[in-house]
Amino acid sequence: MRILGIDPGLATVGWGVIDVERGKPKVVSYGVILTPKEKRLPERLAIIEEDVKSIIDKYKPDEIALEELFFNSNVTTAINVAQARGVILVTAIKGSNGKLYEYTPLQIKQALTGYGRAEKRQIQEMTKTFLGLSKIPKPDDAADALAVALTHSQTSTSLSAGFQIR
Amino acid sequence: MRILGIDPGLATVGWGVIDVERGKPKVVSYGVILTPKEKRLPERLAIIEEDVKSIIDKYKPDEIALEELFFNSNVTTAINVAQARGVILVTAIKGSNGKLYEYTPLQIKQALTGYGRAEKRQIQEMTKTFLGLSKIPKPDDAADALAVALTHSQTSTSLSAGFQIR
Repeated sequence: MRILGIDPGLATVGWGVIDVERGKPKVVSYGVILTPKEKRLPERLAIIEEDVKSIIDKYKPDEIALEELFFNSNVTTAINVAQARGVILVTAIKGSNGKLYEYTPLQIKQALTGYGRAEKRQIQEMTKTFLGLSKIPKPDDAADALAVALTHSQTSTSLSAGFQIR
Repeated sequence: MRILGIDPGLATVGWGVIDVERGKPKVVSYGVILTPKEKRLPERLAIIEEDVKSIIDKYKPDEIALEELFFNSNVTTAINVAQARGVILVTAIKGSNGKLYEYTPLQIKQALTGYGRAEKRQIQEMTKTFLGLSKIPKPDDAADALAVALTHSQTSTSLSAGFQIR
């Protein structure tokens, strides 16, 4: 099964594609969508829509997993991310035939480390380990997207009980 | 010139179409898009995208005007509206060849009443008067959408100096 993980944002959208076979996750590709700050908001959102669509068309994921919005103290940032997230949600639900799943930061931490208060670095280390990579994927947003894809692969009922470390 | 005004929301999206000729605005149609609370967020957003697209296809506006997000005290509501607004922005910029304009509640109040602290009821009365209607358009979200369309018609440089009361 192929899973696309997405870490939503306005300036940077992280994405990561993994294949899971008999509980073993393998990285297919990952990266980030960047939108220029000089452009108007609707144009930046249109870039996000177009690029998410291209990624879905290229990698044809069976299921898509998205990180839930994290409410930080900056309302303007939260609103901007929310506007981008709305666009991603619509594109993703159409591109996955409804097989779209959302995970909170807490769920991601618990799925990957078994510990709800894990640090960002620990999540990244576990992402690296589970995917059998030699380095932590860069940039951070792409690593976060792979983490949410892994979380889904572990939580999804359509898979055998979780994945194993290679 | 034909203007589509939109009042963004998640449960209810107001919309209103006006024609402006030689400074005189005339209502073409208005209404609301409703999304069922029982449905998942991505599905509600997909309904909004589809319906906004249908309205644009049907009425073929030359320009689109959208109300800016009003930050109220309820963060969850603001985030939900922002997610819907992102979807509307992308659909609107694609459906207007970039002729998409945004107005704050303050700008709308000032354009329609000349007074930035006007009450909702006063805005609605002026909307009724400017459009030569016998009653205030219902529901409120549709009236708000017509108000933002009127604001754009008055502010737009492509028109003669504002519209007149009939």
